[in-house]
Amino acid sequence: MSKDHFHLLKTSGNARAGELLTAHGVVPTPVFMPVGSQATVKTLTPDDIKALGFKMVLSNTYHLYLRPGIDVIEKMGGLHSFMSWDGAILTDSGGYQVFSLAPLRKITDEGVTFRSHIDGSEHFISPEAAVEFQESLGADVIMALDECAAYGDSKEKVRGAMERTHRWAERCLKAHHRKGQALYAIVQGGMFSDLRKQSAETLTQLDFPGFAVGGLSIGEPKEVTLAMLEESIAFLPSAKPRYLMGVGSPEDLVEGVARGVDVFDCALPTRVARNGAFFTPQGRINIRNAAYKTLDAPIDPLCDCYTCRNFSAAYLSHLFRAGELLALRLATLHNLRFISNLMGNIRQSILEGTFNALRGSFLGSYEPTDETTRVAQKKKWLEARDA
Amino acid sequence: MSKDHFHLLKTSGNARAGELLTAHGVVPTPVFMPVGSQATVKTLTPDDIKALGFKMVLSNTYHLYLRPGIDVIEKMGGLHSFMSWDGAILTDSGGYQVFSLAPLRKITDEGVTFRSHIDGSEHFISPEAAVEFQESLGADVIMALDECAAYGDSKEKVRGAMERTHRWAERCLKAHHRKGQALYAIVQGGMFSDLRKQSAETLTQLDFPGFAVGGLSIGEPKEVTLAMLEESIAFLPSAKPRYLMGVGSPEDLVEGVARGVDVFDCALPTRVARNGAFFTPQGRINIRNAAYKTLDAPIDPLCDCYTCRNFSAAYLSHLFRAGELLALRLATLHNLRFISNLMGNIRQSILEGTFNALRGSFLGSYEPTDETTRVAQKKKWLEARDA
Repeated sequence: MSKDHFHLLKTSGNARAGELLTAHGVVPTPVFMPVGSQATVKTLTPDDIKALGFKMVLSNTYHLYLRPGIDVIEKMGGLHSFMSWDGAILTDSGGYQVFSLAPLRKITDEGVTFRSHIDGSEHFISPEAAVEFQESLGADVIMALDECAAYGDSKEKVRGAMERTHRWAERCLKAHHRKGQALYAIVQGGMFSDLRKQSAETLTQLDFPGFAVGGLSIGEPKEVTLAMLEESIAFLPSAKPRYLMGVGSPEDLVEGVARGVDVFDCALPTRVARNGAFFTPQGRINIRNAAYKTLDAPIDPLCDCYTCRNFSAAYLSHLFRAGELLALRLATLHNLRFISNLMGNIRQSILEGTFNALRGSFLGSYEPTDETTRVAQKKKWLEARDA
Repeated sequence: MSKDHFHLLKTSGNARAGELLTAHGVVPTPVFMPVGSQATVKTLTPDDIKALGFKMVLSNTYHLYLRPGIDVIEKMGGLHSFMSWDGAILTDSGGYQVFSLAPLRKITDEGVTFRSHIDGSEHFISPEAAVEFQESLGADVIMALDECAAYGDSKEKVRGAMERTHRWAERCLKAHHRKGQALYAIVQGGMFSDLRKQSAETLTQLDFPGFAVGGLSIGEPKEVTLAMLEESIAFLPSAKPRYLMGVGSPEDLVEGVARGVDVFDCALPTRVARNGAFFTPQGRINIRNAAYKTLDAPIDPLCDCYTCRNFSAAYLSHLFRAGELLALRLATLHNLRFISNLMGNIRQSILEGTFNALRGSFLGSYEPTDETTRVAQKKKWLEARDA
């Protein structure tokens, strides 16, 4: 597995273009995985996801364990078959979800005891169980169980969680037997440079086919996220893929790639879509802004997504104001297409050795401007078009 | 308009196969129109609606007048352009919505004063305004403003509403000037045979290109609905299309066609879908039934819809239990495809002179059976498939 899981094709500075080889197809990297926690990327069918250009999605063992249950999905032939998705899948182990969603968790070396956020029932997951569940689900990439410290935790607490994460990673590796499935370890260490280094150095002594950087984007300032990412990646082998967990705003994707990340996931693009926020090359716009009520032009006139090719901002504004379900899908399609195009452009620029130029021009124009200014720009574009 | 709007091609008993000729394509009849009150068929894109086989949808002047406003849609180039639907559209006048949705309505010969169900603001619509609004929206078929009496109203009250409906129909006809747009009158008369006859005879003296039967399915028993439908249709000209408003369960579509109806609309198929009810040839099933949690087969193994071709009942059960938005779309796709196929089969059988056989076999097997029995049948089918 380890040898054939990742090909590094080209670098441009620290940015890397490569590919993940999975039993469900080749996944060009850097890659962003849409989040389908409950075996569905909210509002989208598998056909939609494919048409958007994605070849890999993320799902969550924690959610699927609680509902519908691992046994149900196993009986249905595994997660690919259950959700009718024949592309690649990565499942998270549940460590982060227990940390962020489940109340009253208790962590010992044995594993995690937690209460379901759905019905309050008590559950226990060990590192071995996390692997067993993910083997049953049958994802192409699975994650070791980790312990994520909270932002602001003392260094001793963070060190304890890190060391347990290391012990658990070893146990996960030992417990993992499913062929054609890559198990990644997760680098922890909180906001402490020396712990990040120690975590990366410890885990890379074990033969994992890939490494994730976890425990970031949990409340810390953005410059801390990026610094800790750098401190982690510096000690990861270049021959193996690096996965930055839970990060995925457009600007963060560019910054992550610039620091050598190959794989990303994040619920942000789809979550903000459902709140009416649309990505554009000029920045995020909010469709509930009054100016869009009568704007007879797409959200982004140059966007090739289904939404922008077919609907005016005025129509989207109407759907959101009327509380119509189609609004959520159209916004999701747009934001994910924006991310898919961004990742495609990033990869192309790495292959052509022009990533830094793309990074500069993207971050230059994406610098959040005042929304009113953007609406004025859009009206100007419209006048020019109709002149 | 009147002459070229409808071709009657074939009859089989009272059932009729024909076609509506509109500026946005030929619509084979009998036809069911999915309901898109707010310029969207809930959860579906125009592409979806077309792929399901529909060529005509309904939208509501009442809803669009209140939000986003007729002027906004007119500025966006009309309703077709606004919702990006290049098939045919029929708009209801608002008469029924004022009756069923708006509080504190007051009706005089001038028109209707009502409060918005959204923000309580007061509005007034006259027959002339209803036509003007619908001319601005630009639908292919529009409806005269009518007054719908409530179920249980006295004969005098029903007669008054009917006579006002007649006066308003005449005013609408006089106010209507948009070419390529057909204006239908609405037969009223409540649950009184003689009034139904009188209404049909009065309205058919005016040169409307089509006639609707309104004021039914408002709480009365099903046999009364069908009797009043018969009493109305008996006095409508065979050369013009008949539209039964607000009726559209599978069994009612068959019974309506059997009585000579050409056009139907109803929110029921899409509304019950969002509640987890799926149409099957054996009857309606509720996906929340525990038996579906682990059923590794489509809801309807013979259905050609996207949902049944790609997903098991177990997956749909999971989506509904998890409150996932995709559930609503997949159920809507299924139910509308069921209706689209049913209408296609009905039309084919009329053309072939076998409608009565289809009617008998459909209503025979669709007779609601106990849900548990249907689940047992499905398991049996599954065992047979896997044997």
